[in-house]
Amino acid sequence: MNIVVANDDGIFAQGLKELVNIARKYGTVTVVAPDRSRSGQSHAVTFTDIIRVIKLRDEDGAAFYQCSGTPADCVKIAIGEILKGQKVDLVLSGINHGSNAATNVIYSGTMAAAVEGALNGIDSIGFSIADHALQIDFNSGKGLKYVDEIIQKVLTHREKLKNCNLNGTPICWNVNFPNTSDIKGIHVGRQSYNEVWHDIIVKRDDWFNLPYYWIAGELRDTDADQSTDLYALEKNYVSIVPVRLDWTAHEQIESIKKVFQESL
Amino acid sequence: MNIVVANDDGIFAQGLKELVNIARKYGTVTVVAPDRSRSGQSHAVTFTDIIRVIKLRDEDGAAFYQCSGTPADCVKIAIGEILKGQKVDLVLSGINHGSNAATNVIYSGTMAAAVEGALNGIDSIGFSIADHALQIDFNSGKGLKYVDEIIQKVLTHREKLKNCNLNGTPICWNVNFPNTSDIKGIHVGRQSYNEVWHDIIVKRDDWFNLPYYWIAGELRDTDADQSTDLYALEKNYVSIVPVRLDWTAHEQIESIKKVFQESL
Repeated sequence: MNIVVANDDGIFAQGLKELVNIARKYGTVTVVAPDRSRSGQSHAVTFTDIIRVIKLRDEDGAAFYQCSGTPADCVKIAIGEILKGQKVDLVLSGINHGSNAATNVIYSGTMAAAVEGALNGIDSIGFSIADHALQIDFNSGKGLKYVDEIIQKVLTHREKLKNCNLNGTPICWNVNFPNTSDIKGIHVGRQSYNEVWHDIIVKRDDWFNLPYYWIAGELRDTDADQSTDLYALEKNYVSIVPVRLDWTAHEQIESIKKVFQESL
Repeated sequence: MNIVVANDDGIFAQGLKELVNIARKYGTVTVVAPDRSRSGQSHAVTFTDIIRVIKLRDEDGAAFYQCSGTPADCVKIAIGEILKGQKVDLVLSGINHGSNAATNVIYSGTMAAAVEGALNGIDSIGFSIADHALQIDFNSGKGLKYVDEIIQKVLTHREKLKNCNLNGTPICWNVNFPNTSDIKGIHVGRQSYNEVWHDIIVKRDDWFNLPYYWIAGELRDTDADQSTDLYALEKNYVSIVPVRLDWTAHEQIESIKKVFQESL
């Protein structure tokens, strides 16, 4: 089985290494990951500039490539160039250092790599640990056990999950887990909407008294519903959210038709 | 009324100029647009580097700022810094040179600017003309008339459209129109899924015989359904697709629960 592994924290991230260690149990692993952190790159793609790809090494059934592009580029290069003409069975992304629950999914490069896999019709899972630290002792928690179990379940129930696709439109999987040894189990639920970034723009002056800005911010969660990914993390569950590639608000189309057809 | 205008083709794009000309009829316009083309940047945000913002000019009720960041950054800077403490009533993005119908919406910087507005609870519309040319005679088509009409309808029916939000989650508007004087009317429909990019990775050697890659590709449309945005464009309609910020595949959660709770 051909497995592509990507991430957005870069080829040297600890989370990537842990994910590759699990992935290689299931097949031949091709790792294509950014040559530096590309966190917050969402689904950006590079098509007005060149992309460099360097093979770093082969190691225990896994080939490691560093790529100058974005996470989505990495998956495109893996599928369209490195594994060209071969069937790719699974795209795994992460393990991201930091939660991609709630509206983070919109900004996430990790999830974009999974979405890119799904756009190509491949079963794809994005994994994130709800801890931004770069050095994490993954083995002190139980998260890796669940990463393994979820990969196994996605593979075992492949056909059953295909039936969960939305009108033939693929979905992919946004998996987030807490950094704790006290994980309670798996929670399948929805993206919490009400946790959004409240931006704080920090303005400073440079040496020449010219202003520059940093985009900072804080997450505020006002969504108390037990069906959300944030609730799951807060209660020490592993959160699985099925992510659509069809962003249409189907349910609203009829009402919207009326509005836009009404004369002013 | 405070209106923010952004785009992804950059501050000097013709489509932006046309959109500003329409927007200024409805209120005070703050334009924050990238200092260069940031096409295909999706919802990338800059939080590990500084952002520069330069005010270029005031012109007939519109202030123009160029920004070194992405389209999503531009909207954050407009709302969180330039108009800090003021109510923003409308975010407009575009007019993009090139269609953002079908799965293009996932890669689009133009639509990311609209999504960012909606994440902040603001009515937001992304406009695109289905023509990649940088020099377009917008007045030769009827598109601008519809851009104006759609802005007016979104403003007039603000409350009615709020009821179209999905379980309290905002939606925004993906508007695409053909470059023709023969526009038939407005088509409210869904994102065509089956038009996806089939990537072609072009490999070349540089002067030093080291390889580099271009991501190229072609769109293939296999979705014949009359409810899609691509069908609308093909038949010379203006396409409106309501875009969700909640990407959860809600309908599938119960079946998915079963799969992940089943023992292996």
